[in-house]
Amino acid sequence: MPRYKLTIEYDGSGFVGWQRQDNGLGVQEALEKAVSGFCGEETLVYGAGRTDTGVHALGQVAHVDLKSAHRADTVRDALNAHLKPLSVSVLEAQEVAGDFHARFSAKERSYLYRIVNRRAPLTLEKGRAWWTPVPLDSAAMAEAAGVLEGKHDFTTFRATLCQAKSPVKTLDLLTVERFGEEIEIRARARSFLHHQMRNFAGALRLVGEGKWTLDTVKEALAARDRTRGGPTAPPHGLYLTEVKY
Amino acid sequence: MPRYKLTIEYDGSGFVGWQRQDNGLGVQEALEKAVSGFCGEETLVYGAGRTDTGVHALGQVAHVDLKSAHRADTVRDALNAHLKPLSVSVLEAQEVAGDFHARFSAKERSYLYRIVNRRAPLTLEKGRAWWTPVPLDSAAMAEAAGVLEGKHDFTTFRATLCQAKSPVKTLDLLTVERFGEEIEIRARARSFLHHQMRNFAGALRLVGEGKWTLDTVKEALAARDRTRGGPTAPPHGLYLTEVKY
Repeated sequence: MPRYKLTIEYDGSGFVGWQRQDNGLGVQEALEKAVSGFCGEETLVYGAGRTDTGVHALGQVAHVDLKSAHRADTVRDALNAHLKPLSVSVLEAQEVAGDFHARFSAKERSYLYRIVNRRAPLTLEKGRAWWTPVPLDSAAMAEAAGVLEGKHDFTTFRATLCQAKSPVKTLDLLTVERFGEEIEIRARARSFLHHQMRNFAGALRLVGEGKWTLDTVKEALAARDRTRGGPTAPPHGLYLTEVKY
Repeated sequence: MPRYKLTIEYDGSGFVGWQRQDNGLGVQEALEKAVSGFCGEETLVYGAGRTDTGVHALGQVAHVDLKSAHRADTVRDALNAHLKPLSVSVLEAQEVAGDFHARFSAKERSYLYRIVNRRAPLTLEKGRAWWTPVPLDSAAMAEAAGVLEGKHDFTTFRATLCQAKSPVKTLDLLTVERFGEEIEIRARARSFLHHQMRNFAGALRLVGEGKWTLDTVKEALAARDRTRGGPTAPPHGLYLTEVKY
C-alpha cells in the first residue's frame, strides 16, 4: 500500500479552508474526491496544516495511501486532471515510507502574510493581500516582530477556540520587510497556534500605524490575554508557503 | 478647465478591454461613469493604449478634462470610490497642462508578458499568466528576442486587422528572463502594433519548445506575412506596465 506525499498549492478564496466542513468545500475533500475520481479509492488525505477559510497555500503538504501503485508523476497529473476546474493544484507527488505523516512528521512550517500598503484599492491583488491605505512604518513593525521571535507563551495571539495543548511555541523567525508598496511578514516555526499568524499581522499593523509602541507589544505578550492582542487580520493575506520534514 | 493625468491599474478579466464596446464593459467606460458619479460631468477619458479584452494593466495612463477644479488626490480617491467594486483602480491623479495627451504625448510604452512554465495547473496565477506545461528553453527564447529588437517591418507579428499606418516600428527592448518557474517577456517601444506583444509571445514559446529555431524567427520576420508568425498568445498573460512621457 504505497504512501504518497503531495505538495499542494491553492487559492483559498474558493474553499472553506483545508478541513472538511458542512458549509462548503474543503481542500482536503476536493483532494479526496480527486483520488476517488482517479482510481476509485475512498481514502483520507492528511494535511500538514489546517488552513482557515480563505487562506492560501503555496506549499501545503499532505499524504495519502493508495491501494494501487502508480508512478508518482502519474498521481500528480491524474489528481490535477480530476481537480479541474478548482483552484487547487498538486505541484509534486512523491512516494514516501509508510511512517511519513504530513502533520506529525513536519519539522518546520513557514507562512507569509502580505500587506499592500497604498492609497489605491487593489485590483489584481484583491483577495491575495490585505489592503492597507494608511501609511505603515515597516521599520517599527520589523522591530516589534523581533520582540515576538523566540520561545513564548503566545496566549495573547492565539484564537480563544485554539485546541493546542500548550500556548508555548518557539517562533524561529518573524520578519517584516517592505518591497515598494508591499509589506511581507514571514514566520517560521515547528508549529503554530490557531490564528497566530493573522493575530501577529493584526497587531503589527497597529504598530505600523503608530497606535501601538514596542512596549504595547511587550505588555500584550506578557499579559497572556487574547483581549490584549489586537485584531485578527483577514485570511486572504495569508499563505502557507512551505513545510519541511 | 483642468486636465488630469490618471495612472491606472486593472485586472483585465472583468473587462472587454480598454475601449468602449457593445458586448460588455470597457475600462474607459468604467472610468467615464466614475467621473460622472463623482462630479456629474459627462466626459471622455483618453487612454495611452487600447488594451484587448483580458489584458491587464499595472500602469495604463489616461487623461480627462473636468469643468470643475479639484485637488488631484481628491480626483484619485473619488474615482476609486465610484469604481467599486470593479477591478480597476486609479493609482495616481495629477493635474497636467492642456496640451498633454495620454495617447499622442506618450514617448514610450512598456509591456510584460508572463508565462508560468510548470507541469501543475495554475491556481493563484490563473488568468494572470500563460500556463505552459511543456518545458521551455528560456535561453533560446532570449536569443530569439534579440533578433526582433530594433527597427523592423513587423507585418508578421501584427494582427491582420491592425489599423496602424505603418508596420515599421522600433522595438527598443525585447528580453526574456526566467525566474524559477516564471518566464518574463519584457518589451519597450514608442508604440506597438495590434497584437504585437501577444504574437511575439506566441512565437517565442515555439522557440522555447524547440519547434522554431533562430532561423525560423529570422525568416518569419523577413517574410512580412502574418501567416508565418505563429500563434497569438492569450491575453491574460499580458500587462501594460508603464507609459512614459
